[in-house]
Amino acid sequence: MSGRFITLEGGEGAGKSSNLEWLAEQLRASGKTVMLTREPGGTPLAESIRHVLLNPSDEPMAAHTELLLVFAARAQHLAEKIRPALERGDWVLCDRFVDATWAYQGAGRGLDAEAIAQLETLVIGESRPDMTILFDVPVEVGMSRAGKRAALDRIEQEDVAFFERIRMHYLQRASHEPGRFRVLDAAQPLEQVREQLNPLLEEMLAWP
Amino acid sequence: MSGRFITLEGGEGAGKSSNLEWLAEQLRASGKTVMLTREPGGTPLAESIRHVLLNPSDEPMAAHTELLLVFAARAQHLAEKIRPALERGDWVLCDRFVDATWAYQGAGRGLDAEAIAQLETLVIGESRPDMTILFDVPVEVGMSRAGKRAALDRIEQEDVAFFERIRMHYLQRASHEPGRFRVLDAAQPLEQVREQLNPLLEEMLAWP
Repeated sequence: MSGRFITLEGGEGAGKSSNLEWLAEQLRASGKTVMLTREPGGTPLAESIRHVLLNPSDEPMAAHTELLLVFAARAQHLAEKIRPALERGDWVLCDRFVDATWAYQGAGRGLDAEAIAQLETLVIGESRPDMTILFDVPVEVGMSRAGKRAALDRIEQEDVAFFERIRMHYLQRASHEPGRFRVLDAAQPLEQVREQLNPLLEEMLAWP
Repeated sequence: MSGRFITLEGGEGAGKSSNLEWLAEQLRASGKTVMLTREPGGTPLAESIRHVLLNPSDEPMAAHTELLLVFAARAQHLAEKIRPALERGDWVLCDRFVDATWAYQGAGRGLDAEAIAQLETLVIGESRPDMTILFDVPVEVGMSRAGKRAALDRIEQEDVAFFERIRMHYLQRASHEPGRFRVLDAAQPLEQVREQLNPLLEEMLAWP
């Protein structure tokens, strides 16, 4: 028996987190066992890697260090949490996964695609999402929403061009994998984003 | 102008650290600018990765997580400390480097060589040691010395067979790269190990 693996992707302030909770409630109301999780992190050890990754520091972090920490946390998350849940037949809803690495470290930081592809093969193997929901929002809208929250972490401190590259890359990935990706207009108010989620929920519940 | 890169390798209790200090003193007495460092770690950020790596935890660490954390710390160490020192023309003396990854994560944990080789190429590139001094010691001798020190870290808690595989692998590596490796009998008392270091010191000081 194998569960279902749904990932939510998008830039800062796209509204992933609140919609993740809502989606989990709907699936639970339909009798599914749902595990909510996030990246980077998801287990105590992976969260301690997240802390190293996001904690602002006087020492500039080398681009390869960031990439390797992201995949180290992901390897732990997959081994200790995602794969066991899928093997139990549970639904896993994950706030960001490997598409975020392609967007942030690949398009954002400009790291070479070959390195990311090698690490993706090494760490993820067959554990691919069944559906990835992209919360697309213009950078200014997302940043103004994220700016309303508490202190910005190390990655949120990047400039607008960085986040523009990320948004563009997410949209490109979605257009190349239409079978897996569903793109939402997340600039709309929360209730209208939820209306866009309804047909996706119906699609998931119709899965064999 | 490019400096010189010397690495010291060996199992637990082989006496690397105290001999590293002595070697640095001799090189300084000959007018060299010497930087002492260690892996995993070497910069504040890399040391925070070392902490995640070595801190005993209730959550088992996935083998790939360990491997990726080791290389994340190494990428940071190279970018922020080793390469800048070599570019200044300094001598870098490092307690453990990539041979330790081949020994501990490769031979010790049984991780696939292809993954290690890919990460080695990605992270290290041309930054190869000019000389690697292997402090070889029988496992029982090394463990009884290491056991006299404070609490054992997560990796030092492994069993004897793990350390036997590591010792064997170090010796194999040394035999395959005799141009770079020098092997010392580190089971001898400290003064006699230092006598074995003297000809290596002469060799280094004769480098053009």
